[in-house]
Amino acid sequence: MKKNILDYNFPIDLKTMTDEELELLSYSIREFLIDKVSKTGGHLASNLGVVELTIALHKVFNSPVDKIIWDVGHQSYVHKILTGRGSQFDGLRKFGGLSGFPKSNESPHDAYDTGHSSTSVSAAAGMACAREINGDDYEVIAVIGDGSLTGGMAYEALNNIGASKSKVIVILNDNGMSISKNIGGISTHLGTLRTSKGYLSAKKFIKNTIGSSGSVGSAIAGGLAGFKNDIKYSIIEKGGVLFEELGFTYFGPVDGHNIPDLVNVLNRAKSLDEPVLIHVITQKGKGYKNAEKAPGKFHGIGPFNPETGEIIKKSIGPTYSEIMGNHLVKLAEKDARIVAITAAMGEATGLGPFEKKFPERFFDVGIAEQHAVSFAAGLAKCGIKPVCAIYSSFLQRAYDQIMEDVCMQKLPVVFAIDRAGVVGADGETHHGIYDLSYLMTMPGMTVLTPHDGPGLELALDYAINLETPSAVRYPRGEADEFNNIDNKKTMSTNNRTVKNQRILSGKDVDIWACGKMYDFGIKVVEMLKDRGIDAGLVDVEIVKPLDLDAFEKNCRLLVTIEDNDICSGFGMHMAAELKNEEIKILNFGWPDKFIEQGSFDELASQYGMMPEQITERICEYIEGKA
Amino acid sequence: MKKNILDYNFPIDLKTMTDEELELLSYSIREFLIDKVSKTGGHLASNLGVVELTIALHKVFNSPVDKIIWDVGHQSYVHKILTGRGSQFDGLRKFGGLSGFPKSNESPHDAYDTGHSSTSVSAAAGMACAREINGDDYEVIAVIGDGSLTGGMAYEALNNIGASKSKVIVILNDNGMSISKNIGGISTHLGTLRTSKGYLSAKKFIKNTIGSSGSVGSAIAGGLAGFKNDIKYSIIEKGGVLFEELGFTYFGPVDGHNIPDLVNVLNRAKSLDEPVLIHVITQKGKGYKNAEKAPGKFHGIGPFNPETGEIIKKSIGPTYSEIMGNHLVKLAEKDARIVAITAAMGEATGLGPFEKKFPERFFDVGIAEQHAVSFAAGLAKCGIKPVCAIYSSFLQRAYDQIMEDVCMQKLPVVFAIDRAGVVGADGETHHGIYDLSYLMTMPGMTVLTPHDGPGLELALDYAINLETPSAVRYPRGEADEFNNIDNKKTMSTNNRTVKNQRILSGKDVDIWACGKMYDFGIKVVEMLKDRGIDAGLVDVEIVKPLDLDAFEKNCRLLVTIEDNDICSGFGMHMAAELKNEEIKILNFGWPDKFIEQGSFDELASQYGMMPEQITERICEYIEGKA
Repeated sequence: MKKNILDYNFPIDLKTMTDEELELLSYSIREFLIDKVSKTGGHLASNLGVVELTIALHKVFNSPVDKIIWDVGHQSYVHKILTGRGSQFDGLRKFGGLSGFPKSNESPHDAYDTGHSSTSVSAAAGMACAREINGDDYEVIAVIGDGSLTGGMAYEALNNIGASKSKVIVILNDNGMSISKNIGGISTHLGTLRTSKGYLSAKKFIKNTIGSSGSVGSAIAGGLAGFKNDIKYSIIEKGGVLFEELGFTYFGPVDGHNIPDLVNVLNRAKSLDEPVLIHVITQKGKGYKNAEKAPGKFHGIGPFNPETGEIIKKSIGPTYSEIMGNHLVKLAEKDARIVAITAAMGEATGLGPFEKKFPERFFDVGIAEQHAVSFAAGLAKCGIKPVCAIYSSFLQRAYDQIMEDVCMQKLPVVFAIDRAGVVGADGETHHGIYDLSYLMTMPGMTVLTPHDGPGLELALDYAINLETPSAVRYPRGEADEFNNIDNKKTMSTNNRTVKNQRILSGKDVDIWACGKMYDFGIKVVEMLKDRGIDAGLVDVEIVKPLDLDAFEKNCRLLVTIEDNDICSGFGMHMAAELKNEEIKILNFGWPDKFIEQGSFDELASQYGMMPEQITERICEYIEGKA
Repeated sequence: MKKNILDYNFPIDLKTMTDEELELLSYSIREFLIDKVSKTGGHLASNLGVVELTIALHKVFNSPVDKIIWDVGHQSYVHKILTGRGSQFDGLRKFGGLSGFPKSNESPHDAYDTGHSSTSVSAAAGMACAREINGDDYEVIAVIGDGSLTGGMAYEALNNIGASKSKVIVILNDNGMSISKNIGGISTHLGTLRTSKGYLSAKKFIKNTIGSSGSVGSAIAGGLAGFKNDIKYSIIEKGGVLFEELGFTYFGPVDGHNIPDLVNVLNRAKSLDEPVLIHVITQKGKGYKNAEKAPGKFHGIGPFNPETGEIIKKSIGPTYSEIMGNHLVKLAEKDARIVAITAAMGEATGLGPFEKKFPERFFDVGIAEQHAVSFAAGLAKCGIKPVCAIYSSFLQRAYDQIMEDVCMQKLPVVFAIDRAGVVGADGETHHGIYDLSYLMTMPGMTVLTPHDGPGLELALDYAINLETPSAVRYPRGEADEFNNIDNKKTMSTNNRTVKNQRILSGKDVDIWACGKMYDFGIKVVEMLKDRGIDAGLVDVEIVKPLDLDAFEKNCRLLVTIEDNDICSGFGMHMAAELKNEEIKILNFGWPDKFIEQGSFDELASQYGMMPEQITERICEYIEGKA
């Protein structure tokens, strides 16, 4: 054993390590993870849960020839350590640093990029199929959590693989919870499997029959059919029938923290030429008592004290999510028809207090955004007022249901779109920069873009009273208490309606700042003033229907700023609407490319969106044209 | 019995009819359906398959208090007849006429609007939940085909209902095929159920125990648990376990053409207070021998001769779908890496010849667009060139997968987007008028818009050679053989690349006509000429990346015409790109509302898109501004 895990040549060194050495390695990896993530922040609990599983996978399979696909991908840290990226963990999730998700452009060991849930089995099906067409010889392994299994497309893929009989190894990493607790019939089903006597039997069966050496064991060579029937009928009993009915050979449940058991079952799966599902039981946060006690807190966490588990940088004020959740409780107290829906993100979207206060009006549907939206439509059709709180980038999954079920039927579903705009460390798969683009194309949708706490409350009040579909989109993180030029904290929201409000008039340039970017808008106005340019400012709180009442025709230059893709966003709609006016227009937003991970300011700086840069562009334009 | 089914007062009259009368009614309904649909065209086979089921539903349940949700909805004709809309069938699927899908604004009996697959169970879950919150008392019934069950969101919904234990009656209408044949593990599973001895036993069991009178039968009152166990273990045996594991009580299989059996099982389900799944076996096309023999042909059909089943108005030339399919065969002959993927629409998307020629390179994944796209991404990741042929409006289901799996990984998946633009009789749920809007927002996507056969072939050639994601979108129906001004059929595509080509120069106005609208563009040029206006014309074959090489800066008025939502479409992008040019711009496209059913010309006329109307607007603009 080496002293430092960075001294190994992974994954090659794994192949020759003994069971005992592998177990010791698992301790070192946990120590390393806790140390590194306590400094950078990141997904900890899920990675602590897959230490042994990842070791076993790299022991048995030959990555990158064999392809391991990590569903969702935030549990790929151990995989990154075991494929030569341990030394990059100081830059984890930072601008220019190691991604918190698999990225094929980072390493050939990352067989498929993930970020959104439930795609791994489909990707594995494609790779297995490619293998057959190309006449190649490699294994394809999808590692999917029980939470991700609630997503419908995982079922679509299992259904297809089961029918094709193509060899894919699906590892169901069952920790009995996704991000929050896991809900659904399938969850009950897995619970039954976990607590059935089959668990012990499986362990015993594999040990006794195959032996713990990792070799397949000649005792059962040629007795495959018998082995399968044994597995099917004595070990899994009735439980695994669900997967068997879909066409998979089911192995499990297997103790996900026992490396020899895992190695045995993986070797067994490798030796078969058919779809196999291995049901592995793991504990989220395993081996770190703070995370074992509160796996939810350590799912995605900022820097923390490794001794106590306490988060180092606590937020001062409430987050947008908290403000939304608390305000929704107030609204629901007055209106019994208001219900809240989440797709496995109850706490994260601020719905904790709502769940506590109105458990019978709170619905966590699992990672199933499509169902969440049509379920909401069904509720709304019968007079209920559903609020769907979903992260912007995850809501993309329900594009079709928002369009066809909600908008086409003109139903008063409110979408509380959390984590809109650039989200920071999670990077390209998680930035919510397309919602304005697609929601503005949906007929009859109202889209609101508040930029501070009171604005968010006002927007919710407004949305909940509409009789048609609406979306309130707000950014990640701490909310400005009250963010208005000159008179912060003093302006009352009483008697205010949601509209694009003129805050300042200016003769040289008019700045329409949307949502979060309002803050930058204020700064740009001030900077322009210093350069002798008189700028107006409009607070854009509503982007659909397009409210141009505040538009001043005499202004020579109009500037829009938004925390959305510039392509099809608010600015482009405004430019198109004013296309035949004499006014010149500059649109600021994220460019038509995927935006990497980084802090908001780093990314804004990278793409010319910082107040100084916007100011400079405006000055150049005015000077160039003047 | 009345002579004419239009003389009844449905659904009330059903309640007092005897079994014999109901059976006779089923014959009258079939006659009526065949007669009407042979004249108007429409979905025939699926409706012939649910005649008895629909009668039984309206016999047992009290619509519109009880809510019947028809998944996909094209099998709701019998329901429409039985809810007082028989007299409107001459206008079926016509402009201003009866919809071919459930529409709540058409009748309160249409509890929920459908059109896209697999939403019914989610909507039913919402309605059942609303019932509990509101303290109402009604039944919720979702009727879903075995094809729709391959869609992942149906599974998400079953999973949730199973866990909530909320009373929802799901009727699995199993005809062993969706539009084309049904594929997947679940399909095999259902096949086993269909052919198991359970089928007969169920029939016998229900007859003997409950009696055929339709009453629940006092013999089993109080013996519910025992009854359920009987059902579970003696009738369904192992098969129904899949649904039981999800938390449903499973009844079936039941003969879907035996009204007394159906009435009995529906009454039984009604008497329980839990989720029930009734597995009903029906035959698509039942009772009309032409449709029984070729249910696929009679799925969605134009006017036909009811005696022979022959389609009356045969198309003269090949459709865009056929051209795509045939050309893909040619490409695949030269390149073994090309594969074709369909989501249960193999024949309809023109992939029949491909399937025949390359069965091992053809993949029908069922109604599972999300899986189709990530499966394609997995294939592409391993060097295969997948072509996904999917209808424009159905591709909306995979918005997130196109964005996150294909575009973010820059994978060379080709989307062959069929039925793009306004599709006609299927109406608002099926118009493909949003694809340009959302695809143009996807970083790195190439979007091509051919408008005739050779153009489509050229676009496919171009797309298949890209190493990045691409989409080729083309309209429904017959393709123009070669559609170019002055020199139809003569211009060769040799040595041509895909670009926005200038066809004519004009000093007064420049018309950029996109895709299908190129034809209208030619007409507008000619009409303008008659009015003394000199118009230029550009054939817009590529909308992303935006190719403005042909743009002539000196032109005073630019006109764009596209068969897409005007909101975020090609025209809006072009207008935004040219926002600071002196040129004036007029954009023509579908307005920001849902577009009803009707022929292309009727709809174009309704929304000011006919050549005469476009010409008039241009003239008004020029005169008003001159």
